[in-house]
Amino acid sequence: MGKFTIASNSLEQMITWRRDFHRFPEVGWTEFRTASIIAHELDQLGFEVQVGKDVVSEERMGVPSEERIAACYEKAKGNGGYKAYMEKMVGGYTGVVGTINGKRKGPTIAFRFDMDALDILETLESSHFPQEIGFRSENEGVMHACGHDAHSAVGLGLATILANNLDQIEGTIKIIFQPAEEGVRGAKSMVEAGVVDDVDYFLGMHVGTGAPLGTVVAGTDGFLATTKIDATFKGIAAHAGAEPEKGRNALLAAASAILSLHAIPRHSAGTSRINVGTCKAGDGRNIVPAHAFLQLETRGENSEVHSYVHQQAISVLEGAALMYGTELSYKIVGAAKTATSSEKLIEMVAHSAKIANGVEEVIPRSKFAAGSEDATYMMSHVQQQGGLATYAIFGTTLAAGHHHEKFDIDEAVFSIIVDTWLGTIEEIYKEESREI
Amino acid sequence: MGKFTIASNSLEQMITWRRDFHRFPEVGWTEFRTASIIAHELDQLGFEVQVGKDVVSEERMGVPSEERIAACYEKAKGNGGYKAYMEKMVGGYTGVVGTINGKRKGPTIAFRFDMDALDILETLESSHFPQEIGFRSENEGVMHACGHDAHSAVGLGLATILANNLDQIEGTIKIIFQPAEEGVRGAKSMVEAGVVDDVDYFLGMHVGTGAPLGTVVAGTDGFLATTKIDATFKGIAAHAGAEPEKGRNALLAAASAILSLHAIPRHSAGTSRINVGTCKAGDGRNIVPAHAFLQLETRGENSEVHSYVHQQAISVLEGAALMYGTELSYKIVGAAKTATSSEKLIEMVAHSAKIANGVEEVIPRSKFAAGSEDATYMMSHVQQQGGLATYAIFGTTLAAGHHHEKFDIDEAVFSIIVDTWLGTIEEIYKEESREI
Amino acid sequence: MGKFTIASNSLEQMITWRRDFHRFPEVGWTEFRTASIIAHELDQLGFEVQVGKDVVSEERMGVPSEERIAACYEKAKGNGGYKAYMEKMVGGYTGVVGTINGKRKGPTIAFRFDMDALDILETLESSHFPQEIGFRSENEGVMHACGHDAHSAVGLGLATILANNLDQIEGTIKIIFQPAEEGVRGAKSMVEAGVVDDVDYFLGMHVGTGAPLGTVVAGTDGFLATTKIDATFKGIAAHAGAEPEKGRNALLAAASAILSLHAIPRHSAGTSRINVGTCKAGDGRNIVPAHAFLQLETRGENSEVHSYVHQQAISVLEGAALMYGTELSYKIVGAAKTATSSEKLIEMVAHSAKIANGVEEVIPRSKFAAGSEDATYMMSHVQQQGGLATYAIFGTTLAAGHHHEKFDIDEAVFSIIVDTWLGTIEEIYKEESREI
Amino acid sequence: MGKFTIASNSLEQMITWRRDFHRFPEVGWTEFRTASIIAHELDQLGFEVQVGKDVVSEERMGVPSEERIAACYEKAKGNGGYKAYMEKMVGGYTGVVGTINGKRKGPTIAFRFDMDALDILETLESSHFPQEIGFRSENEGVMHACGHDAHSAVGLGLATILANNLDQIEGTIKIIFQPAEEGVRGAKSMVEAGVVDDVDYFLGMHVGTGAPLGTVVAGTDGFLATTKIDATFKGIAAHAGAEPEKGRNALLAAASAILSLHAIPRHSAGTSRINVGTCKAGDGRNIVPAHAFLQLETRGENSEVHSYVHQQAISVLEGAALMYGTELSYKIVGAAKTATSSEKLIEMVAHSAKIANGVEEVIPRSKFAAGSEDATYMMSHVQQQGGLATYAIFGTTLAAGHHHEKFDIDEAVFSIIVDTWLGTIEEIYKEESREI
Repeated sequence: MGKFTIASNSLEQMITWRRDFHRFPEVGWTEFRTASIIAHELDQLGFEVQVGKDVVSEERMGVPSEERIAACYEKAKGNGGYKAYMEKMVGGYTGVVGTINGKRKGPTIAFRFDMDALDILETLESSHFPQEIGFRSENEGVMHACGHDAHSAVGLGLATILANNLDQIEGTIKIIFQPAEEGVRGAKSMVEAGVVDDVDYFLGMHVGTGAPLGTVVAGTDGFLATTKIDATFKGIAAHAGAEPEKGRNALLAAASAILSLHAIPRHSAGTSRINVGTCKAGDGRNIVPAHAFLQLETRGENSEVHSYVHQQAISVLEGAALMYGTELSYKIVGAAKTATSSEKLIEMVAHSAKIANGVEEVIPRSKFAAGSEDATYMMSHVQQQGGLATYAIFGTTLAAGHHHEKFDIDEAVFSIIVDTWLGTIEEIYKEESREI
Repeated sequence: MGKFTIASNSLEQMITWRRDFHRFPEVGWTEFRTASIIAHELDQLGFEVQVGKDVVSEERMGVPSEERIAACYEKAKGNGGYKAYMEKMVGGYTGVVGTINGKRKGPTIAFRFDMDALDILETLESSHFPQEIGFRSENEGVMHACGHDAHSAVGLGLATILANNLDQIEGTIKIIFQPAEEGVRGAKSMVEAGVVDDVDYFLGMHVGTGAPLGTVVAGTDGFLATTKIDATFKGIAAHAGAEPEKGRNALLAAASAILSLHAIPRHSAGTSRINVGTCKAGDGRNIVPAHAFLQLETRGENSEVHSYVHQQAISVLEGAALMYGTELSYKIVGAAKTATSSEKLIEMVAHSAKIANGVEEVIPRSKFAAGSEDATYMMSHVQQQGGLATYAIFGTTLAAGHHHEKFDIDEAVFSIIVDTWLGTIEEIYKEESREI
Repeated sequence: MGKFTIASNSLEQMITWRRDFHRFPEVGWTEFRTASIIAHELDQLGFEVQVGKDVVSEERMGVPSEERIAACYEKAKGNGGYKAYMEKMVGGYTGVVGTINGKRKGPTIAFRFDMDALDILETLESSHFPQEIGFRSENEGVMHACGHDAHSAVGLGLATILANNLDQIEGTIKIIFQPAEEGVRGAKSMVEAGVVDDVDYFLGMHVGTGAPLGTVVAGTDGFLATTKIDATFKGIAAHAGAEPEKGRNALLAAASAILSLHAIPRHSAGTSRINVGTCKAGDGRNIVPAHAFLQLETRGENSEVHSYVHQQAISVLEGAALMYGTELSYKIVGAAKTATSSEKLIEMVAHSAKIANGVEEVIPRSKFAAGSEDATYMMSHVQQQGGLATYAIFGTTLAAGHHHEKFDIDEAVFSIIVDTWLGTIEEIYKEESREI
Repeated sequence: MGKFTIASNSLEQMITWRRDFHRFPEVGWTEFRTASIIAHELDQLGFEVQVGKDVVSEERMGVPSEERIAACYEKAKGNGGYKAYMEKMVGGYTGVVGTINGKRKGPTIAFRFDMDALDILETLESSHFPQEIGFRSENEGVMHACGHDAHSAVGLGLATILANNLDQIEGTIKIIFQPAEEGVRGAKSMVEAGVVDDVDYFLGMHVGTGAPLGTVVAGTDGFLATTKIDATFKGIAAHAGAEPEKGRNALLAAASAILSLHAIPRHSAGTSRINVGTCKAGDGRNIVPAHAFLQLETRGENSEVHSYVHQQAISVLEGAALMYGTELSYKIVGAAKTATSSEKLIEMVAHSAKIANGVEEVIPRSKFAAGSEDATYMMSHVQQQGGLATYAIFGTTLAAGHHHEKFDIDEAVFSIIVDTWLGTIEEIYKEESREI
């Protein structure tokens, strides 16, 4: 099919990459090995390659501790990371953008793939495919349990095919490899660094999310706007038996905040969510707790609702601190927007998907099941410039749900993705030529 | 006994007064009838009489609404209040001080009696003595359920005897009739008006409090310092179904405050208490509550502890208001101090009580059972000036506990009180003459 | 227009009734005067009239105290209530159903009107139309501030026209006058008494709700299912200073419940609401609160969501009681369902409204703005039997919002309602004849 | 002085032991090395030695995980623990009792020393004496920061002197080495095993606690009764964005419990305390928390007060679990009683202390500063049998407060302790001979 020629070993190559990435998973802002390998490969293929602060702004959300970043850096060095690229990523600026220009004029099309893994201990059960085949995580306690290993591999596969079909390219194609999607941290910094400023067509994607193999969702809506907040109440410790009055109880402030955060009223303009997911407080049973740390998130169906919930949450945190004479500090460690896929681009993706090998059902538009995605920053930025953006779901058989220790995908989805994306490029070119 | 001659109809007269006051009970700052009758009687007896703003400072705590004060004023007019005195008490300045000077030099001795009743509906049961005899409250819903009717009557009885024994008086005797003891509101304003500035010996008292008839406690300690706080959270109403986000929920602020107030830590330096006694909030089931009103109190065994609890309480109220975007307003509507009875004066009272008719047991010093008393403002003021102060308990048989709808006392205690107080005056004179 | 002849004094008559009902407003389950006048009029017109337990089941929600019912009964007697009917309503069974049978066969059509007023003090401002004209509420503190006076009047107006056009009636027409719609209390009992068991077409309605005069909404959706709950925590009183440990604090239980009720999680299957609208607790500042009374409500967009919120709320109440050693008792004092208007009947109403005099815009279907309505019990019962049901909104100019002390309507809406309902009857007859 | 001869190297030997124990600190129920060395030394000295389940009952509070116990066991084996004794302590039955019988008849006197260390990382600062001299903890993260290393060393020193003065002993002397005093866990099990059943005189002690070197407190009162509770709420996890209603929020249950626990009312019969010292809940920001773990403690000045607070706490935990549909499990992991030192024994200790070398001040009786102590189980058991018990404080200069990473004592206190205890034995013998 189509104008792009796909080498026969293409699928095999993607599988190799995916399993390699799976073996050496790296959490957000520490993807030194993954990102440097991607940069190296893109360079080999003839892409113009940008990494580090060229594609990630100084201000980033949810950056791990310096110690952890440094340790991951060392580990990456020992596991085959490319030092030349890694040096440009010191401190965790682990984004990569590969750009290729066709000989003819044309639009700028961007594909976005995310690269980060999760703090999950991968199962040791022999029936778990990565364990059976031998590509289970070697970074104990870190796991690709969301499919970003597949995303990265497909990104490289797509790059390879494009490089081999340079004559077919009109205008510019950018392949964006984003760090730190988990916790919705990385996209905002890449947008701020300008990586989608020139993009006319933006294509984001995810594998799985409950859709069966053979199903393609051409456009996704219903992303919830969200902020991820780390809040710390700092009080004063005191012996709880001898001098309770000398303490300022950070845990009481936190408990009050937790209840009142969950009690923030619903909003008539749409769905909202709030969750205090973790709490860690106190140093000992008989000490008035001097610190309490909360990880929470707010969500809203639209910016009005989300901004309401977010502001209420901050008020609650501040009031709770005051109630107990404690000090509040908080940080926004992640954020994503709402976004709506562009109808015209959905049609192009759907058209392309329908004729892709292995596709059984194409759903034009559906709601995003998993809550929030920071590709929305890129989508809305492109749309605000007048460009089109969509976010596709490529169904695949899952061994267990996302973020589960037994998560695994069916790699057969790779060729469906590549076919759909190549077909979409063709559709865009057709559309552009019509317009002229 | 003694140097003071007591007329034979003295007890009878006190009983008559007590039952009259019982029939027309008046709550704090509305004792127009009671106070004006007392003023009239004192004047008839030859006392120098001060009322109104001469004995009550402008700033008062816990004053009822203007409407209620006005209505009580009208009622008092209809029930035999003396208009000439009432006019000086307009607005609720219902204190009275009677002063009598002996021909010889001597100390200034003050007795303090309180006059106010409670918002309690007196029982209609025929076995209730006031009902049986016919002096049950005619001010429906207001009742002398703490014995202040007896206090006022005894104060007048004492005044009568003193007036009839003018030759025996050395120096000055002041009889202080205080409004608004319930809720510990009135004493502070009388102190601020200067009524105890010249007092050398201060004698406060209460009937009942659990002690049996025939028992006299010569001195009381363990008064808890307290403040009474009225707090209002003001939010914004909204239809709870249609637009919950438009509301600012005053009841949630109150609920948060209530829990956190009770969670104020104990203090290692002594006993503390906190109680939110009442809450009234909201206008309807389907409206986000726009207001919540709390009546609370803090207490502490000493000023360090009490000041700690009080300040924490204010912080909690302020923080809770902030949490929910509501406005807090609060008023201190009552206050009392800690106080310790003076050893030397206890001894004199005890000596006098031991030889009083009908006394079976004299306890020199005990702890105050009922919590707080604002006579403490007078006691500590006198002590700070170098004077002596004590607070005595005169046991009597109670039909039911204080503040109960069936509360009643045995009037046989009246002669014990009068004997003890007259004897104490004699003891003081002896002591003074020894000193010279 | 149409087959029904409308007498020239018809509008005038409805206005007279409306103002009369407005002058003597009666809250839910106490509509003795209103209901007995309606019954009397229906009887005069030749309707078969049912009242009392024939149309209201024994089990009712949210019934006022016996004292209040008795007092309202006496008041109604003095204000022109018809004793013969009132006697059948003793205890507050204040429903009325009038039935008229045509000579020809045909369907059973039911119209439902509600009769109850609210506990609101009507404004005395002279600019308030009812005050100006002289039909302001004579039942001080009770007010028709939602338009049910208009509903009742229109119901009688419709009955009059139908009685005068008996020849035009095919089958049966029932006019249901429901008590206690406020707080969604009355409809369930009328359904349980069987009043809509035989109904083929059900037509409910409301005036106002924000729609302008001239606008008719032919069908309404989005009613939230709801339950209204009265919850009481019973604790043990104790002196808060002297023996706090003897108390069981009902207010702390309530405060805990209030926070946790509002913190019940959102549901992914739809909109939910919860509101604790009022709280009243405690007897005095220095007493551990022995009782706390909450009025709350839960709502849900569908029965799954609502049942979830309702059950969570009960768990929270029970747990909070246990936490503080208090006893919980609660009552369901109101309930309504979700409901969707039937498309086919919407079309008939819309068709009829379009040609009614004074109608400028017809909106086929919209969402219910005010939250919940217990006509939904009747609607879903009729639909479950295979019948059709709709709920129309007749816009009118409002002097102030519903439940406001200055609420007033433009009576010009009366003729629009009558025209639309008569036209709808014709449409139904056309439809029925088509079907045969 | 005295009848007991003290070898010249005695102090040196105690210092050696203390520093050795300090180098290899072991937390409660894992004192394999410490206890087995003590057992070995006692055996060498000729004491009858009991260890393991002979002196510790099966039922124990606050036992660490099997993994930790096993790991500590292995570590102890590698660090010079005596295998023969350790084998009798498998599972953490790490108590030791040494008994020596004099040739003459006499009373049974028991001394109690505790052996356990704390989970504290000892400072690395060079100015810290143990670091400077080279006996800083080699069990990283575990530290003798409360002085139990000194207690154990003094116990052995006392045993050595007694063994060398066998002729002076009348009756029986028992030296009890208790595990797991921190968290008040070990004493109850030793009492249940019967180790103080035959004791006539019981002598407990602590170094430091704020008293200066040279000060001896002969008897201690004011121990607060306490229970230490570990509580776990188990809920159900769910994606907080996608399906919040599927979750059962254990953190909300915990937050509710935390507030309400601190809000447990004061008790009029005495001082009470409650503290939730730590909280750990949840697995991730976007997951409804499925578990929450609290470490809390209750305290009371007497058994009435403590039992009240404890029972209220359990009710609060149970109610909070119910509120959120979560499951509560809790364990009592520590407990201590109130106790009062026996006057007669205080006099003997005071007499002895006054003539001890280096003692500058003897305080007969004072309040225990640090809250709770489980030696109280032994004290009250002995007193209930008719014996006498006291608890002495031996002041010493502290480098930093108890439980601080820089805690250190002045070993000069050792000779004061030994002198005082030997003198006390003599006083007891004098007293006993007087009695006969």
